[in-house]
Amino acid sequence: MYNTIQEANEAVVEKMKNAQPFLIDVVPAHTVIPEHNEGKLLTHAGPPIAWEDMTGPMKGSCIGAVLFEEWASDEKEAIAMLEGGEIKFMPNHHVNSVGPMGGITSANMPVLVVENREEGNRAYCTMNEGIGKVLRFGAYSEEVVNRLQWMKDVLGPALSQALKLTPEGLNLNVMMSKAITMGDEFHQRNIAASLIFLKEALPYLLKIDMEEEKRSEVIKFLADTDQFFLNIMMATGKAVMDAARTIEAGTIITALTRNGKDVGIRMSGTGDQWFTAPVNTPQGLFFTGYTQEDANPDIGDSAIAEVLGMGGFAMIAAPAVTRFVGAGGFDDALSTSNEMSEIGFDRNPNFPIPTWDFQGAILGIDARKVVETGIEPVINTGIAHKEPGIGQVGAGTVRAPLNCFEQAIEALAEKLNIEA
Amino acid sequence: MYNTIQEANEAVVEKMKNAQPFLIDVVPAHTVIPEHNEGKLLTHAGPPIAWEDMTGPMKGSCIGAVLFEEWASDEKEAIAMLEGGEIKFMPNHHVNSVGPMGGITSANMPVLVVENREEGNRAYCTMNEGIGKVLRFGAYSEEVVNRLQWMKDVLGPALSQALKLTPEGLNLNVMMSKAITMGDEFHQRNIAASLIFLKEALPYLLKIDMEEEKRSEVIKFLADTDQFFLNIMMATGKAVMDAARTIEAGTIITALTRNGKDVGIRMSGTGDQWFTAPVNTPQGLFFTGYTQEDANPDIGDSAIAEVLGMGGFAMIAAPAVTRFVGAGGFDDALSTSNEMSEIGFDRNPNFPIPTWDFQGAILGIDARKVVETGIEPVINTGIAHKEPGIGQVGAGTVRAPLNCFEQAIEALAEKLNIEA
Repeated sequence: MYNTIQEANEAVVEKMKNAQPFLIDVVPAHTVIPEHNEGKLLTHAGPPIAWEDMTGPMKGSCIGAVLFEEWASDEKEAIAMLEGGEIKFMPNHHVNSVGPMGGITSANMPVLVVENREEGNRAYCTMNEGIGKVLRFGAYSEEVVNRLQWMKDVLGPALSQALKLTPEGLNLNVMMSKAITMGDEFHQRNIAASLIFLKEALPYLLKIDMEEEKRSEVIKFLADTDQFFLNIMMATGKAVMDAARTIEAGTIITALTRNGKDVGIRMSGTGDQWFTAPVNTPQGLFFTGYTQEDANPDIGDSAIAEVLGMGGFAMIAAPAVTRFVGAGGFDDALSTSNEMSEIGFDRNPNFPIPTWDFQGAILGIDARKVVETGIEPVINTGIAHKEPGIGQVGAGTVRAPLNCFEQAIEALAEKLNIEA
Repeated sequence: MYNTIQEANEAVVEKMKNAQPFLIDVVPAHTVIPEHNEGKLLTHAGPPIAWEDMTGPMKGSCIGAVLFEEWASDEKEAIAMLEGGEIKFMPNHHVNSVGPMGGITSANMPVLVVENREEGNRAYCTMNEGIGKVLRFGAYSEEVVNRLQWMKDVLGPALSQALKLTPEGLNLNVMMSKAITMGDEFHQRNIAASLIFLKEALPYLLKIDMEEEKRSEVIKFLADTDQFFLNIMMATGKAVMDAARTIEAGTIITALTRNGKDVGIRMSGTGDQWFTAPVNTPQGLFFTGYTQEDANPDIGDSAIAEVLGMGGFAMIAAPAVTRFVGAGGFDDALSTSNEMSEIGFDRNPNFPIPTWDFQGAILGIDARKVVETGIEPVINTGIAHKEPGIGQVGAGTVRAPLNCFEQAIEALAEKLNIEA
């Protein structure tokens, strides 16, 4: 169908560029991910992984999810259940879904529903819980589980009702193109996008029928959660890339994700196949009382941001992030994005970046260029404590190992030779 | 008291740096500006000006204000009253106040109250009306007057009630230091600051006792008015600079304002004295259907932004503005701020600008340096149609004429010689 890899790549990024992601609903995971109805299932970040190979924060998240689902009544029982093999595990990426850090998603967790109107496909992601002690970083105390209950009982239904009042859902390209001019790169910094989302959702949140006290709780939570948009961007990224990867040709990266043990990538030309390599540990800045020693290796589906040309690739859009992740000043932000543009396939005219002299965000990571240049993609990331139950301890940057990209290119070469 | 101009200037900018502006209330102008209780008064932007010398947009604003106050029942009657000398005029700057574009303020218009907690002084500014047909740009149709009535009857009282629920008012340094990392320069771009203001005010707006429909109107207006924070910044600038100018020594600019005919400046060492020169006409980009031919000469108190180191001086913080005002790309934003730093006295550590490699905003325009270098301060500004009744037709930049600064330095030299 495509004469050259260049042509195939052009077709893949054309789908990325033309994507029309809209946030249309928030629903319990099991209503849109049927796998949750076939016994106890937890979906997780990264490529496939077994319980015994999971690192601390993902294990902590699993314990929290079991308690949230009331499959067990305490931590000990939950651990026994998880160790005993009663619970199935599956990557989020296998069920049209993504999740930050541990990424653990269970049947009754509410998920954001993003529809890519250009192709009609949908993708899902849990909602952002805020900062501090939160499930995604491996905390599972009563406070954490209670917040998840509130998100299920109050926040999710409120947003669902509000979104149903919108004429067509909320247009995410429009929100992202505004926010990228306001210092967000959508991985470590979503403060502008979260405010824009609040502003767009507000008229509808004010219209829906609900107790005034609960309405205030919802609005206050959204106003206070600077990273709320992170998870919306992630579902957006998944919806965009799942449409793009229907073209099974070329060398554009369609998934980049980490389970705490391995990084996994998918490439357009090799379809569903995962290419994995051991993860690196992020380097960065730590909250008071924590050091590099406490850092868990790299984890989370959130690197879908970088696949979209955001996160570390769009560092120049968010120079304030460089200080947060310990990556230097404005010139360092500029050189990071410039370096990443060497492994980018094209530019995205939907997202001009004023601080990059209005150049578009990077459009498509080209695995060929990664291998040719040896430049490993940079990821802006949160850092979880390596022990379960503690949570976030910092933020930093990490590189995706070259080896995955080499494997992908080799596999494609083999496939093309066999076909030819 | 000060041995050198340098020492005096240091004292002036110290007051700018230490200012603690808080938004504490919204009240009818006559309750805080007693001059409004002594017969019919309209206060205006810029240095003193008579009705017959006003340009179109300021005249249009006067007509609108007369109709809003119901001093006249139609345009014809309003014009007769204004021409007949029944109404007194006075600069906003003479009554602790500022106003954008025409800056026309009348007794019953609600004004924002900003208190500089460091010194205890207060400053006032009307609220932003949004875009399109608005009084400040000289429109005075029924739509315009009706919106002013709604602002008086609904928006003002709601914000007043909400602000009274806050523990100490809303901290404006905090909001501005966030927004300057989000692409705002506070003159032509306040989109981030306006969202941050909405977010901070929301919990209180949700608590106050008011009709739900009106509450929704208020919240929707604030969410939709991207320039709402402009007027808050202006009252902030006035509160900061009025405290700074209690030091009557040195060469720091304490006011820079335009009435459509003249630019007027005040300098710390020469106190209340105005130094004026004919205004230039802004150059910029025009809305569809309008051209440079339609542009009114420079007008408004909003150049208090530049006095604070924002607006054109902080162009680098807001590269997206450069396109809106027709001032080029990122490098042009950078060179504009770099050029302005040559006439700046120091840097403000309260407002680090990530896109300027975290350098602080410019702190204090030094009239000596303006005269020495011949660099005229750049102002980012809206452009009004030169005829009354039309409104905004574009946005651009304009320079404050060197001549005002030369006059100020000469006056200071004379004063110092006399004293010596």
